[in-house]
Amino acid sequence: MTEHTKTACLVIIGNEILTGRTQDVNLAYIGKKLLQKGIKLMHARVICDIEADIVGTINDVRKTYDYVFTTGGIGPTHDDITADCIAKAFGVGIDVNEEARQILIRHYKGAEHLNEGRMRMTRIPFGATLIANPVSSAPGFKLENVYVMAGVPSVMQGMLDGIVTKLQGGPPIVSRTVSSLVPESIIAKELGEIATKYPKLDIGSYPYFRPGGFGLSLVIRGTDEAEISAATQDLCLLLKRHGGDPTVLVEETFP
Amino acid sequence: MTEHTKTACLVIIGNEILTGRTQDVNLAYIGKKLLQKGIKLMHARVICDIEADIVGTINDVRKTYDYVFTTGGIGPTHDDITADCIAKAFGVGIDVNEEARQILIRHYKGAEHLNEGRMRMTRIPFGATLIANPVSSAPGFKLENVYVMAGVPSVMQGMLDGIVTKLQGGPPIVSRTVSSLVPESIIAKELGEIATKYPKLDIGSYPYFRPGGFGLSLVIRGTDEAEISAATQDLCLLLKRHGGDPTVLVEETFP
Repeated sequence: MTEHTKTACLVIIGNEILTGRTQDVNLAYIGKKLLQKGIKLMHARVICDIEADIVGTINDVRKTYDYVFTTGGIGPTHDDITADCIAKAFGVGIDVNEEARQILIRHYKGAEHLNEGRMRMTRIPFGATLIANPVSSAPGFKLENVYVMAGVPSVMQGMLDGIVTKLQGGPPIVSRTVSSLVPESIIAKELGEIATKYPKLDIGSYPYFRPGGFGLSLVIRGTDEAEISAATQDLCLLLKRHGGDPTVLVEETFP
Repeated sequence: MTEHTKTACLVIIGNEILTGRTQDVNLAYIGKKLLQKGIKLMHARVICDIEADIVGTINDVRKTYDYVFTTGGIGPTHDDITADCIAKAFGVGIDVNEEARQILIRHYKGAEHLNEGRMRMTRIPFGATLIANPVSSAPGFKLENVYVMAGVPSVMQGMLDGIVTKLQGGPPIVSRTVSSLVPESIIAKELGEIATKYPKLDIGSYPYFRPGGFGLSLVIRGTDEAEISAATQDLCLLLKRHGGDPTVLVEETFP
C-alpha cells in the first residue's frame, strides 16, 4: 500500500449479529466496494446495541481512519439507538430533522401516518447531512467522517452505492490472483521470500480443497502496476517449479 | 443478562475478510455455540495480518472479556503471524512445540515430510496448551483466556466443538421468538415500554418482508424463565392488539 491509500473502519451494530441469529453480509460488500475506490477497509468491529459500546467505539475509531461506516440500529424501535449514540459521541444535540420528516411524509403518503416509531427515524444529529435511502426512504446520515447506514443489506447497499461516488479515494488498488493445484506448505518458504521482495504489495495465500487435490490461490494487491506484474511473474514461476500449471485472474477492481 | 453471564470476544484475523474476498461465517457459528454454553459473545473485531494490529487488539480485549477467541493466521505461510503475535502480546517466547511436531509427523507420515512451512505450524508460544484439530491435525492453542483457532470454517468448528465442552459457562441463556405479520413501526412505542419493563432481558426487533406483507420477529433472550414467559405473553398480546396472529418459537439454546 502506498501512503496515499485512504483507510476505512466499519462498525457493525447489532446483538443479532453477535448471537448468530443474523449472518452479516455487509462487511464483504463494503470491503469490495471501497477497494474499487482506492479505499482500504482496515478494521471492523461488531458491537451490541449498548450506548456505552457504540459511543466508545465511534470515538475510538473516528480519529484513526479516514472514513468510518456504521451499519444497523437506525430503525423505529427501542433497540435502534445508533443516531442518539452518534450525537453523544460527537457531543452534539439531536432532534427531528425537517428534511428527513418530509421524506417520510412523502413515502408514507401523509403526515398523519408518521407514528412515534416512524418519527424516531427522523431524529438526526445536529450538523449531519442525510444519506439517501433509495429502497425504503428512511435516510442515513453523515457527520464529519462517519457515515451511518441501515443494517438491512439491500438498504445498506443502496445507501453505500450513492455515497461511494462522492468519496475521495486513493490510487486504484489492483489485484491479481494466481492459482494452481500446489499444496501451500510446499511453497511457503519461497513465497515468504517473494513477499519480502515486494514490501509495498499485499500478498496473501489461500489454500483450497477440490476434487482434483489441494490447491492454492495467491492474491497480490497494490497500487503499482509494474511491481504487481513483476510479482505475478515471480509467483507463476514459483508454482511452475513445484509442478503447478498456474492460471492468472486479472481483477481490475477500479472501474 | 445477569451479572453471572460469562462474556467473550472474537478476533477475526485476515486481510481476505476485510477485502471481501472471503465471506466470514465463523462469527455466527461461534456466537451460537457460546450462547448454548451460557457465554455471550459481546464483541468482535476483524483485523489485518499486521503485527501491531494483532498484538494491540489482543492486549486490548483479553482483560475485558472472560474469553477471547481468535480465528485465522495459523497456517504455513509468511502471512500466518498469529502465533508469533500472541507470544508478543503475552511477552513470552515461542518455538517449535514437541507435542505439535509429533502430531504433524503422524499426520504427514514421517519427520522427513515436515518442510519449513509445516514446521511453522508447530511454533507455539511458551506456556500454551494445544487445541486439537480433528480435521487437518495442525493444532491451535490456548494461552490464559485466549483461544487461538484456524480460520478455515470446518477446522475452526472442529476445534471449537472440542473446546466448548470444557469451558466454564454461565446460567443457560434461553430465547423465544415471537413472529407476526405486523409492521415494526406500528408497535415500536409499546414494544419499547415492554423492553423497559424487563431490563434484564434482551428484546430485539427484526423486521422482514415476505410475499404476505411486512412481518416482524421479536427475539427475547435471558436467563430467567419466569421473566421470559411473562415477556413472551406481553409481546403476543401486543401483536394481537395490532391485528397480528403471533407464533412463538421456543428455542432452548442450552443443550
